[in-house]
Amino acid sequence: MAMAGFALDDRQRLDWLRLIRSESIGPRTFRTLVNRFGGAAGALDALPELGRQAGRSLRLCTPAEAEREFEALRRRGAHLIALGEAAYPVPLQAIDSAPPLIAIDGDPAALNRPCVAVVGSRNASAAGLKFTATLARELGDAGFVVVSGLARGIDTAAHQASLESGTIAVLAGGLDEVYPTQNIPLLDRIRQRGAALSEMPLGWVPRGRDFPRRNRLVSGLALGTVVVEAARKSGSLITARFANEQGRQVFAVPGSPLDPRAEGGNHLIREGAILCAETAHIVDVLAPMLRQGDLFGPVPFLAREGGEPPARQEALWDELDLPEVLPAPKLELESGFPQQQDVIADVPHRRLLDLIGSAPIAMDDLVRASGRPAREVSRILLELELEGVVQRHAGGALSRSG
Amino acid sequence: MAMAGFALDDRQRLDWLRLIRSESIGPRTFRTLVNRFGGAAGALDALPELGRQAGRSLRLCTPAEAEREFEALRRRGAHLIALGEAAYPVPLQAIDSAPPLIAIDGDPAALNRPCVAVVGSRNASAAGLKFTATLARELGDAGFVVVSGLARGIDTAAHQASLESGTIAVLAGGLDEVYPTQNIPLLDRIRQRGAALSEMPLGWVPRGRDFPRRNRLVSGLALGTVVVEAARKSGSLITARFANEQGRQVFAVPGSPLDPRAEGGNHLIREGAILCAETAHIVDVLAPMLRQGDLFGPVPFLAREGGEPPARQEALWDELDLPEVLPAPKLELESGFPQQQDVIADVPHRRLLDLIGSAPIAMDDLVRASGRPAREVSRILLELELEGVVQRHAGGALSRSG
Repeated sequence: MAMAGFALDDRQRLDWLRLIRSESIGPRTFRTLVNRFGGAAGALDALPELGRQAGRSLRLCTPAEAEREFEALRRRGAHLIALGEAAYPVPLQAIDSAPPLIAIDGDPAALNRPCVAVVGSRNASAAGLKFTATLARELGDAGFVVVSGLARGIDTAAHQASLESGTIAVLAGGLDEVYPTQNIPLLDRIRQRGAALSEMPLGWVPRGRDFPRRNRLVSGLALGTVVVEAARKSGSLITARFANEQGRQVFAVPGSPLDPRAEGGNHLIREGAILCAETAHIVDVLAPMLRQGDLFGPVPFLAREGGEPPARQEALWDELDLPEVLPAPKLELESGFPQQQDVIADVPHRRLLDLIGSAPIAMDDLVRASGRPAREVSRILLELELEGVVQRHAGGALSRSG
Repeated sequence: MAMAGFALDDRQRLDWLRLIRSESIGPRTFRTLVNRFGGAAGALDALPELGRQAGRSLRLCTPAEAEREFEALRRRGAHLIALGEAAYPVPLQAIDSAPPLIAIDGDPAALNRPCVAVVGSRNASAAGLKFTATLARELGDAGFVVVSGLARGIDTAAHQASLESGTIAVLAGGLDEVYPTQNIPLLDRIRQRGAALSEMPLGWVPRGRDFPRRNRLVSGLALGTVVVEAARKSGSLITARFANEQGRQVFAVPGSPLDPRAEGGNHLIREGAILCAETAHIVDVLAPMLRQGDLFGPVPFLAREGGEPPARQEALWDELDLPEVLPAPKLELESGFPQQQDVIADVPHRRLLDLIGSAPIAMDDLVRASGRPAREVSRILLELELEGVVQRHAGGALSRSG
């Protein structure tokens, strides 16, 4: 539930943006800092000293940088909604890594209707796509907004079939960095009755590791997540795992054991997910929940502006969510995820992959060796990275994974 | 568990055969009568008077008829094993409609190895058949005997893949009345390392309603039943229901919701069956049970020869399992079964079905109208009956079901 009447003023919103855009500050650390220091402004003031105590300097987002993002969002007509504000989606607020700020393109009203996440394989079968389209249309008829990740395959089919009834695309990059680019026209249509949502800065080009991080928002917006087709180790299973950890229903569509695309769904069902063979199997579970009223209970861990700052700051460092604030892991949700391993079926992907070995190779060398345009190589590489078969090193060099 | 040292002498075995072959005597009534009257001989003596009390005459199997069946079984080298004897399969003994006598062709030793039932659609897909073959072979490798019903499709694939490791075919008719006839060569091979089993008299031609009745033996012989492909209303689901009622594990192989052959399996999984996508999903559950020792506990309801006959018989009628002894239902297990409705895909079946309406038509008229040989019409009719789309009336006339 939102804090009654809670709303940031412009100055506070700018401070919130600065704090969450600062180095090593994730959603959990953000809330700890704001609550400790009586607001984002106090946290920003305290951070340099906290960094020094830890023996490193944290780069803070400057007021000018935050102003620029603010202004760019305003120009495109996007909304920047803060955790605890009335427009912030209640189910998302209930997850413990809820982003302090979400940027919305489209109709924010879609965010506060009951949602179901529909996710699955990029390399989906014709049958899987057909099932997804029926499911998404019928979920729309039943009054649910369909949430998905705008990926090729199942995600695309889910969005397309729910354009009229309402659908939300959660992006791994900034609102202006749509992946895959061929879904830019689809996203334009999604915005008409639904919304695009991102926690990342405008201009943020999504990297492979941003996708699993994003998946917690897909599941977190929804009462339940349906996995339609998924390999045993796939991003969809990450979404299902988040849904489960967030206390949401997990549904999975079964398939033949001889079909590798069914492995993930069948595995989830064995682990306790509800088998979904028709839309009623979802609606029959979720519709009664809607009549229950306050599903998510009080949210104990909001960021509160205007609290009393502490008298001494030295002892606080130990109370913070350390791994999030220390060196690399801005991406607190990344470790331990299964790799995404859809089948690499496309010939250009296969050819480029053949050029990449276990030793890192520079992007320039790869473009030269491939004889293809840099833009195309870059696009294929991101897809390979998403499949989990290629990893990116410092300086952008690439190697085979694992 | 068998009664220690329990074995019938020739005279008792003949009486048991006479009693179970008498009109309206099913397995439950058999046991009630034997235990009430101190043995089968006493029950046979008492039956005419019991029938008179109920206002009807029960036709008893004569000693000569039983002798003839005895002799015919002996000639073909078959074994006639009584409930409670050491060779009687322990799991089958534990079901409350265990047949008092089972006829076995082949190796009776196969009956006392751990069994898994593998059943499914007659109109199976290539993928379903392939999965079944792998499953049955791997179950054999894991030490299990595969039990099935010798039907076309999944049953046939299950038997074929377990010929070397051991397989049991449970027949709906007598041992000499094999259905379908094209599986006679397969049954000959099954008998070499496994067995054919029937509770029906030699010469008994199976009717549609004998198949669901038979299915309780398929599940009853096994620690668990696996349903590979099955329509929503199919004989395989009857077997699964029996397995469940008998306290055995039910496994089901999932499939695409768009495949009608997966409906039954998916439905079973939603109802609590264990999703089976690989052989280990079965073995991991059943293998530990084998190490447990006495799985089925004491069987309280064996038929005991040599008890004291009661002083007065009049009051006993009310204690009997009446529906079984009264008019038609020799086939006590039949009522309330779902119809078997596999797809009627074959052209000859479809053509014959078109000739049959809701008003019963005589077999002779049907043969004439179809222009096909009586033998072929008869074979197709049985299949239609098995599909549940045609029903047989008194005198052999036929009509559409439902």
